[in-house]
Amino acid sequence: MKPDVAIIMGSKSDLPVMSEAEKMLDSFGVKAEIKVLSAHRTPLATINYAVSARQRGIKVIIAGAGGAAHLAGVVAAHTTLPVIGVPMPSRHLKGIDSLFSTVQMPSGVPVATMAIGASGAKNAGILAVQIIALENEKLEKRLVNFKKKLAASIKRKKG
Amino acid sequence: MKPDVAIIMGSKSDLPVMSEAEKMLDSFGVKAEIKVLSAHRTPLATINYAVSARQRGIKVIIAGAGGAAHLAGVVAAHTTLPVIGVPMPSRHLKGIDSLFSTVQMPSGVPVATMAIGASGAKNAGILAVQIIALENEKLEKRLVNFKKKLAASIKRKKG
Amino acid sequence: MKPDVAIIMGSKSDLPVMSEAEKMLDSFGVKAEIKVLSAHRTPLATINYAVSARQRGIKVIIAGAGGAAHLAGVVAAHTTLPVIGVPMPSRHLKGIDSLFSTVQMPSGVPVATMAIGASGAKNAGILAVQIIALENEKLEKRLVNFKKKLAASIKRKKG
Amino acid sequence: MKPDVAIIMGSKSDLPVMSEAEKMLDSFGVKAEIKVLSAHRTPLATINYAVSARQRGIKVIIAGAGGAAHLAGVVAAHTTLPVIGVPMPSRHLKGIDSLFSTVQMPSGVPVATMAIGASGAKNAGILAVQIIALENEKLEKRLVNFKKKLAASIKRKKG
Amino acid sequence: MKPDVAIIMGSKSDLPVMSEAEKMLDSFGVKAEIKVLSAHRTPLATINYAVSARQRGIKVIIAGAGGAAHLAGVVAAHTTLPVIGVPMPSRHLKGIDSLFSTVQMPSGVPVATMAIGASGAKNAGILAVQIIALENEKLEKRLVNFKKKLAASIKRKKG
Amino acid sequence: MKPDVAIIMGSKSDLPVMSEAEKMLDSFGVKAEIKVLSAHRTPLATINYAVSARQRGIKVIIAGAGGAAHLAGVVAAHTTLPVIGVPMPSRHLKGIDSLFSTVQMPSGVPVATMAIGASGAKNAGILAVQIIALENEKLEKRLVNFKKKLAASIKRKKG
Amino acid sequence: MKPDVAIIMGSKSDLPVMSEAEKMLDSFGVKAEIKVLSAHRTPLATINYAVSARQRGIKVIIAGAGGAAHLAGVVAAHTTLPVIGVPMPSRHLKGIDSLFSTVQMPSGVPVATMAIGASGAKNAGILAVQIIALENEKLEKRLVNFKKKLAASIKRKKG
Amino acid sequence: MKPDVAIIMGSKSDLPVMSEAEKMLDSFGVKAEIKVLSAHRTPLATINYAVSARQRGIKVIIAGAGGAAHLAGVVAAHTTLPVIGVPMPSRHLKGIDSLFSTVQMPSGVPVATMAIGASGAKNAGILAVQIIALENEKLEKRLVNFKKKLAASIKRKKG
Repeated sequence: MKPDVAIIMGSKSDLPVMSEAEKMLDSFGVKAEIKVLSAHRTPLATINYAVSARQRGIKVIIAGAGGAAHLAGVVAAHTTLPVIGVPMPSRHLKGIDSLFSTVQMPSGVPVATMAIGASGAKNAGILAVQIIALENEKLEKRLVNFKKKLAASIKRKKG
Repeated sequence: MKPDVAIIMGSKSDLPVMSEAEKMLDSFGVKAEIKVLSAHRTPLATINYAVSARQRGIKVIIAGAGGAAHLAGVVAAHTTLPVIGVPMPSRHLKGIDSLFSTVQMPSGVPVATMAIGASGAKNAGILAVQIIALENEKLEKRLVNFKKKLAASIKRKKG
Repeated sequence: MKPDVAIIMGSKSDLPVMSEAEKMLDSFGVKAEIKVLSAHRTPLATINYAVSARQRGIKVIIAGAGGAAHLAGVVAAHTTLPVIGVPMPSRHLKGIDSLFSTVQMPSGVPVATMAIGASGAKNAGILAVQIIALENEKLEKRLVNFKKKLAASIKRKKG
Repeated sequence: MKPDVAIIMGSKSDLPVMSEAEKMLDSFGVKAEIKVLSAHRTPLATINYAVSARQRGIKVIIAGAGGAAHLAGVVAAHTTLPVIGVPMPSRHLKGIDSLFSTVQMPSGVPVATMAIGASGAKNAGILAVQIIALENEKLEKRLVNFKKKLAASIKRKKG
Repeated sequence: MKPDVAIIMGSKSDLPVMSEAEKMLDSFGVKAEIKVLSAHRTPLATINYAVSARQRGIKVIIAGAGGAAHLAGVVAAHTTLPVIGVPMPSRHLKGIDSLFSTVQMPSGVPVATMAIGASGAKNAGILAVQIIALENEKLEKRLVNFKKKLAASIKRKKG
Repeated sequence: MKPDVAIIMGSKSDLPVMSEAEKMLDSFGVKAEIKVLSAHRTPLATINYAVSARQRGIKVIIAGAGGAAHLAGVVAAHTTLPVIGVPMPSRHLKGIDSLFSTVQMPSGVPVATMAIGASGAKNAGILAVQIIALENEKLEKRLVNFKKKLAASIKRKKG
Repeated sequence: MKPDVAIIMGSKSDLPVMSEAEKMLDSFGVKAEIKVLSAHRTPLATINYAVSARQRGIKVIIAGAGGAAHLAGVVAAHTTLPVIGVPMPSRHLKGIDSLFSTVQMPSGVPVATMAIGASGAKNAGILAVQIIALENEKLEKRLVNFKKKLAASIKRKKG
Repeated sequence: MKPDVAIIMGSKSDLPVMSEAEKMLDSFGVKAEIKVLSAHRTPLATINYAVSARQRGIKVIIAGAGGAAHLAGVVAAHTTLPVIGVPMPSRHLKGIDSLFSTVQMPSGVPVATMAIGASGAKNAGILAVQIIALENEKLEKRLVNFKKKLAASIKRKKG
């Protein structure tokens, strides 16, 4: 089975956070491939990956990066696929630099930006499922179910 | 023709910004409906709208709001459709409050957040097209064309 | 005895902070009920709770949430009771996102916002007492006493 | 008729913003008195005002100030009445200094903080009404009405 | 020997930071008294202290407080002595709230603001010495010496 | 009559703001000299000025600068006089850069930092008077008077 | 004469700011070429430009961009030439987004970041001259002269 | 062999971060000298160092400092050499103060600013090599090699 979603990240150290996206996709039965690709350190590999993603059957690209986080934006520049950006927590500025670098894209090239860190990575997985589920009823049912389980996990009085 | 995209906003004063999303969708031949709905002032109408959107054939919801911008998040809580959030520029904090209120969603309920203001509204339109184009080759071709025209409009030496 | 104050929070993990509000109310002899309710994950339960609170005798609602903290605002949209918001400390942005999402409410729907974290939760309890004490002389005397004890606990020279 | 609400502000230049609170109270038939009192420039007058407010029948104090906005906090230190703080927009820091100085109160002395500027002033008026309405059914009905009118003013499609 | 400098702070927990001011003054042979006084929790004691400081021979008041840090400003409102403010590090906002609340004073009531935390407390001590030294040649010589020792402690190549 | 206070600034464009300090000093009958001196563009002139200020009878130096505002700090490095820093409003970051560059001095070299802009400049003048007044009873009386007039200018009900 | 310096920018609207770099270079007799190239809208043209710059004799690349300002970083990824980044003022966040996106580069790919806006553009020109002057005595003399003129333009008493 | 690059820092405690610059330079075979020099505590030594650097054969100066980080700017004021600034992480404000104090230089005196902390220090080393490599083919080849190794270290699928 070919992957529907690509999860890429700027550094191997982002894996613990970004694997949350993969786990989420996996829980919905959506296959993902994971790559470490850097907009700054492996720019040509990144571009090749972005340019060829659609032909290889990828439907959504999730990109996580920190600091001057250009990965999602660079990928979005080279594809017409929806690109989801996850701002990584950064060491000194706590991810506010990553957030601004990911979300403040110029008109013409959107990046669907998530929250900073692990919550954002999980939600990137869910958003990818929501997008794919538009033409996949089975997935849509799983999303409805997911929302129910989410509510159930919360509905507990005082511990 | 029924609309594929819903554009909602917290206040009529957001219309000049949010109509940029509609214009963009229109330029791709994608139909949108526009509503003023407030998470705080018309909460039940907002929820009804969110709950019924999918059945009415809507595929993507674009929500713009400012300040304590809860609109996109509240809508995302009530639908499994992809929700795109546009943080409105705010009077005193310049939209940084809108941005944080839109993007920092808890895990389980993603909002695909765009840049603050008009660039964000335009990009919300493009992202909606990218999502719909996954199963619509004609739209996909228009996106490829759009990227070319975007580049052409830039490729001019020194004015 | 029916509770006068409702303390709600977006996630069970907010309990250690939000229980400071309950302890404070308890020290004044004011009864509170505690619920975990999420604007995003249990939206309908949250609205039902807000809508019915006044009829059930609740006088003040204290709501704590973090990140894109919509809980207090969503509750305030569905009730005419005074709503006190406590911005939870958030992992990456330290509660500044929670603060902006709680305090920057549009005109028409106020949220009485407290400081970020445990100080805010304690003060939410005190503010609820101050509100109820307007028509309760016994409580008012306890507030005067509280202010005296507060001063006494501080008036100590150098340790 | 004696006023139920006191509206005070640090400088006469705050009047255009703070009079929004008075207008709101007036629309609910709640009487307010307005004073210019500065925590820094008329400190003793401010304290006397705060200390005597309850005896004079005041139920809620609304205090607006900007920059190192100490007015609401200083008043809250000298009364057991609920104190609502409105952070004024400031010239250089746009009210973020006013917001932090108003909301980040230490435990023991709450200030119910509103949004920066005119929205905050309006909401201060509404919150004061909500507090007084707890023991005033006529006011409570007006609040229900207000919420309806608020919704009606929004429910208009596309302009 | 009567103290020349008063060091006050909003909470006993500020003592480890604020005692750096005392140590610095002590190293110059300048006597200080230390008091815990809160603008919000012991407001009258604070005002009495401020009002009487000059008559008791105090020349400079150093005030440290955190969060909505009103202590230095409130003291400055009640005295014509120079008041030095030290913004305490705060738990969630790291002292940026303390800094804004201390430094952004309205015209008419200056607070000489130092850096956040221990560096600020040390420098508060030095500034107090610089002020007193204007009419005290012995102190002035110690300041010259201090500057030399400061330089000497730095002038070391690579460890 | 020789000046007691030096007012220096990084650029002639700072004069409209910094002349507020001079006017304030003038209103107290304290003489000031004004110089444009840049830490970055006339570094040696700046150092010579700082080094010689005390011998020339200057008692307090007020330094205003914007952006990477090093002027006050550089001057403080070369004198044992009290140095008051006024952060200039800056074009893009509104003076927050100037504030951090002025106030966050390392331990050993204090700069008495005022509010951003004109309020800060006025207060710099007052603080200088407060310092000089410690040994000048006439000035001290004028400060008491100033505080009274300040209060009188505020004590006016509703405009 | 071939240009030594390349000045590129993300949008034609950046030209008024970025032409300050060209004017500065021109005043030193250093030739520059100016191109509008966008990391997001003309990504391949940008990369080709970066990759070929050194062979074409360019010694320093100055790149200005705003918002999620990826231009300098993308260019730096594709060349071993020194790259100078100028953060453009942005509409809503005033250039703080541009600054973070430009300066917070990951280790391995430096961007020499200047101040936000026109000052930054001018300084980019000067830094480029400083770099080229390391092996060009004539330029070095002009830099010494420039510093003198800079000081002369400042050394004027009180306007 | 004489050093080509000077690495200076405001405090010995900056050495663990700043030695990353030296290691990077060393890996390219470029010699550096390291000095602890403070703009505020050893101002004259700092100026002498800056003024004489070029004559002693230094080509690039790397300066690291934190808080009100004036070191790079002060050095840049006294030399025509390219000056690279590394903002040190600061205790309370996490380096945002250091960043603003380093990067927001006035026009006329550029500082090539790097990212906050260790990444910035490493990149300062690389930028220095890039500058020197303009006239040194051997170094240029090492830079090309470095970029290849950087890419190779990243190009690894999923851990």
